[in-house]
Amino acid sequence: MDSPWDELTLAFSRTSMFPFFDIAHYLVSVMALKRQPGAVAVAWKNPLSSWFTAMLHCFGGGILSCVLLAEPPLRFLANNTNILLASSIWYITFFCPCDLVSQGYSFLPVQLLAAGMKEVTRTWKIVGGVTHANTYYKNGWIVMIAVGWARGAGGSIITNFEQLVKGGWKPEANEWLKMSYPAKVTLLGSVIFTFQHTKHLAVSRHNLMFLYTMFLVATKITMMITETATVPFALFEDALSRMLFGWQQQFTPCEKKSETKSSFNGTGSSTSKPIAVASDTVKKKHTKKT
Amino acid sequence: MDSPWDELTLAFSRTSMFPFFDIAHYLVSVMALKRQPGAVAVAWKNPLSSWFTAMLHCFGGGILSCVLLAEPPLRFLANNTNILLASSIWYITFFCPCDLVSQGYSFLPVQLLAAGMKEVTRTWKIVGGVTHANTYYKNGWIVMIAVGWARGAGGSIITNFEQLVKGGWKPEANEWLKMSYPAKVTLLGSVIFTFQHTKHLAVSRHNLMFLYTMFLVATKITMMITETATVPFALFEDALSRMLFGWQQQFTPCEKKSETKSSFNGTGSSTSKPIAVASDTVKKKHTKKT
Amino acid sequence: MDSPWDELTLAFSRTSMFPFFDIAHYLVSVMALKRQPGAVAVAWKNPLSSWFTAMLHCFGGGILSCVLLAEPPLRFLANNTNILLASSIWYITFFCPCDLVSQGYSFLPVQLLAAGMKEVTRTWKIVGGVTHANTYYKNGWIVMIAVGWARGAGGSIITNFEQLVKGGWKPEANEWLKMSYPAKVTLLGSVIFTFQHTKHLAVSRHNLMFLYTMFLVATKITMMITETATVPFALFEDALSRMLFGWQQQFTPCEKKSETKSSFNGTGSSTSKPIAVASDTVKKKHTKKT
Repeated sequence: MDSPWDELTLAFSRTSMFPFFDIAHYLVSVMALKRQPGAVAVAWKNPLSSWFTAMLHCFGGGILSCVLLAEPPLRFLANNTNILLASSIWYITFFCPCDLVSQGYSFLPVQLLAAGMKEVTRTWKIVGGVTHANTYYKNGWIVMIAVGWARGAGGSIITNFEQLVKGGWKPEANEWLKMSYPAKVTLLGSVIFTFQHTKHLAVSRHNLMFLYTMFLVATKITMMITETATVPFALFEDALSRMLFGWQQQFTPCEKKSETKSSFNGTGSSTSKPIAVASDTVKKKHTKKT
Repeated sequence: MDSPWDELTLAFSRTSMFPFFDIAHYLVSVMALKRQPGAVAVAWKNPLSSWFTAMLHCFGGGILSCVLLAEPPLRFLANNTNILLASSIWYITFFCPCDLVSQGYSFLPVQLLAAGMKEVTRTWKIVGGVTHANTYYKNGWIVMIAVGWARGAGGSIITNFEQLVKGGWKPEANEWLKMSYPAKVTLLGSVIFTFQHTKHLAVSRHNLMFLYTMFLVATKITMMITETATVPFALFEDALSRMLFGWQQQFTPCEKKSETKSSFNGTGSSTSKPIAVASDTVKKKHTKKT
Repeated sequence: MDSPWDELTLAFSRTSMFPFFDIAHYLVSVMALKRQPGAVAVAWKNPLSSWFTAMLHCFGGGILSCVLLAEPPLRFLANNTNILLASSIWYITFFCPCDLVSQGYSFLPVQLLAAGMKEVTRTWKIVGGVTHANTYYKNGWIVMIAVGWARGAGGSIITNFEQLVKGGWKPEANEWLKMSYPAKVTLLGSVIFTFQHTKHLAVSRHNLMFLYTMFLVATKITMMITETATVPFALFEDALSRMLFGWQQQFTPCEKKSETKSSFNGTGSSTSKPIAVASDTVKKKHTKKT
């Protein structure tokens, strides 16, 4: 147990997120907010609202996990140091003269470094969420997965919800449906760490943290360099979906019948789309199969 | 106290909901979800989203009551058995080959049986909510009514809210206004059981549970067989509303004036509708009166 | 410490809000609800929904602060006396024959008295929120400011949110952005009382409560009499914003560039508005400066 590998991973798993990784996380989140159209104008017109949105971008995952566990959503405000850190980053990002921060951030190496460090914080958040949920529900492994997922990738849900309230976001069903890549990879990590925590996965946590973080950083940087949005899970997902749901494609006629029956209960306008979607879904599966 | 009637009702009030009544509740809820247009297509495209919506349909009332009492909304996820039960019912309902479940459910007797058993679970939920709220607020009878109501009929509110977030539901004021029949009957039951719990109603709980459940099942099955949506409370409601608010119909001129005054503060477009509504409300009351 | 001034302010700070000031607060809130177009028609069609909205108008701030601190939002329902008081005021306001209450309230002196007493309750709410939040987080002064602000001015947020769910409110970004006068003055008071509570402000609480309440009442009545909506903070805000963000107006070219860059990431339709807003913001600042 004293192999250099174990020492390395153990030292890695004991790294403190506080000063530098948190800064990278805040920087990436605030820059993503600034990239949104109109964000700069909002910051000029009403700095308080822009600051609030920036805080939601930085601490959204923690807020969502607090809501799901009925803890005070304001808890993140009790950590004055992190609040001041994120606020100062928001301030220099939006109000730095001549927009130096954005110009510095526009260089690819800086973006790669910041994005990689942000992915490291994701692992810490998932582990923290899983461990925290386990203190509430001893064998509630579904809760552990959900909380780890929420803390790791819940920021987008919170910000979408805020934009919905602010009216800046017109929700569409398919936006809500398709999971983004971070949501998928965070769900995978939450499942893995939950099984590790419930001793169903015979691997030490620090090794798992190291490997999962390396996987996160590698995929993220690869996607940023190649500027591709294709999720490396496509094959895995396709196999899983075919294993779970795909074995019915031979029953397509029956399935079609049920779809038609279900569509009879709705107005023609709203049902025309889903049926088309379903049919081209079936088509896609067929093409994949052949 | 040893009359056969008491023994019957006592045994009935001790019936466990777990295996069969819960299954009926999940089946009815998931079938109601599948009846929605596009639900099948969503289940094919994104099973996770469909599963989440199905869980909200099955456990919505409990989630709402947890939110109202500041308990973890994820608590329902900690009950792994019920989650797996509901998930398997969702799975076989949506992905059963040749759609056997829907075809079996399309027979009226099956629907009647399932709907009746679901109504039985409603009584248990109301009683559980009232008792649970009483542990928080000793003499907060308003809270007890609200929590019992939320746990018994809160599923529709949660699912409407979810559809609002998903953008699949365009809310309209009158949709929010008119209470559905389950909401009304659940409110009545919540009031009754609250008064029984606060000893204002001199009847033993098991008798009340038996009678209320019989009333629920009878009205529900009658409404399903006769395919009518007329609420049996119409007369009672009319009498109550006339007793509380109806004695002003002789002051209609004054009432009209106030409406006109209040309408001056709004934009002409939005006020035209309410006034029309109010006027035809007054008309309807008059016609009822005559 | 026994000066008559201290005795006066001490006695004032010990005034009980319960019977009269609460009644004034409920009356002002319910009258503001009744002024909304269509509120009277809703009260006639569905009294329960109107009663629920009225309760949200009366207790919205407390509900929001409960949500933020993960306390039961139903706690306000446990105070049966206040609920019955507010309900009776809602009843006589909406259903009083010949609309006597509205006619009596339409006299300016009555409105001034009620509005002044409502402002007094605002001070009590802020102090209560700050003190309550301090029991949770010893040195979380940001939380104390937020909770005091929420309890003092959170009613509008809750009611806007309810209208959003009911579909009666089409949100617009700028509605959310600009803070109303009560929100600003409540934020100021929350900051003041938080600093007083954390001993950063060397003034006794009862003096501060007296002075802040006098300031609230004076500004409110002045605004009502002169029927002006100009906030007396305009100069202060302008100086603060120029001190914090204004020193970059010499970098307007750089700022413009950044705005253009940020606008490239959005669709042309949605970005055209914010840029215009930003540019006229810059213009306005220039005109202010000259």
